[in-house]
Amino acid sequence: MHDIEFWFSIGSTYTLLTVSRLPEIERRTGIRFDWRPFSVRAIMVEMNNIPFANKPVKAQYMWRDIGRRAAMYGLEPRLPAPYPLAEFDLANRVAILARQEGWCRDYVCATYRRWFDEGEAAGSEPNLGDTLRELGKDRDEIVARAMSDRIGQAYLEATDEARAHGIFGAPSFVVGGELFWGDDRLEDAIAWFRKGRPGGMPAGGTA
Amino acid sequence: MHDIEFWFSIGSTYTLLTVSRLPEIERRTGIRFDWRPFSVRAIMVEMNNIPFANKPVKAQYMWRDIGRRAAMYGLEPRLPAPYPLAEFDLANRVAILARQEGWCRDYVCATYRRWFDEGEAAGSEPNLGDTLRELGKDRDEIVARAMSDRIGQAYLEATDEARAHGIFGAPSFVVGGELFWGDDRLEDAIAWFRKGRPGGMPAGGTA
Repeated sequence: MHDIEFWFSIGSTYTLLTVSRLPEIERRTGIRFDWRPFSVRAIMVEMNNIPFANKPVKAQYMWRDIGRRAAMYGLEPRLPAPYPLAEFDLANRVAILARQEGWCRDYVCATYRRWFDEGEAAGSEPNLGDTLRELGKDRDEIVARAMSDRIGQAYLEATDEARAHGIFGAPSFVVGGELFWGDDRLEDAIAWFRKGRPGGMPAGGTA
Repeated sequence: MHDIEFWFSIGSTYTLLTVSRLPEIERRTGIRFDWRPFSVRAIMVEMNNIPFANKPVKAQYMWRDIGRRAAMYGLEPRLPAPYPLAEFDLANRVAILARQEGWCRDYVCATYRRWFDEGEAAGSEPNLGDTLRELGKDRDEIVARAMSDRIGQAYLEATDEARAHGIFGAPSFVVGGELFWGDDRLEDAIAWFRKGRPGGMPAGGTA
């Protein structure tokens, strides 16, 4: 049972900000986030929603904005990081598998850290192999399973579920039927969740 | 002499949020904002940056997000408001003229109020005429001057200046050479401005 759905794709740059601070927020507030990988790329292509490719001025701003916001959160990522990801789908199929087995959050945090601290693209080597090794997994076995039809179907279904929520970008947060888009709306999503509960106190929360 | 440049186009929906709260922020903080109209549309067309047209899912989210953020600020706009504006350029040419004469802020606040409280498109009748009348101006005389070559040139030059800042959307804030995009970055822009001054205190400020 979760309080807020956190919809993300590994490959989204702004998602770094959420991934980097969400574990601490979960710990501090007791709010239970469901980490939901999906293909934001598939939805954006469908919608012809192309925010940065061939938009150099916007892309330059994006890196600067992420750098400033990261500094606000006490992070020091190496920017710009490799972008876009060559192995976007593989990175997210591994996340789909990891979610089924309960190691999604650890995988996502570790692969983002290597992507933004070490400058190694998520989903590609050495990021993927080193991340899986860090988690005690066999790289080749995980990749083989992530590329299975079963995980492919689960990836499509997660993306369908995101589409049904009206999600068009990442990261997104869903609280009941309410959608919030962007790391900069995480606080709005949390406030919305709390407002829905008597006294503004999340179940099991301490904040 | 100004502290922060506030770049906007009448026609930008999110700019409602900034226009509605900036006068109070100016009063409370003593920070001097330069209200700078320009054509965000011209720049967005050049960049093929089309965030909402033919993107119904994103457009629907935009209205919901603006409504929630407006409520955070104590506003109750009628949403969705008429959009996009048929008379975008006229609305902004009047703002260019108004800035030269010192009534830009009053004009922008008044026309946004009619746009979002009364549901009357800015730049069109009855919004434009009623707004100018409220400010003690003759509608036809102002429109004739706003449509002059001189104001057309000033509008182009303001847009060139925005482009040179790397501006690609509205509202935007420029603090020294630092660009911030979006009403949701206004607090970041203010923090950046304060950080640049000893003690974090703006010149002449009381906050």
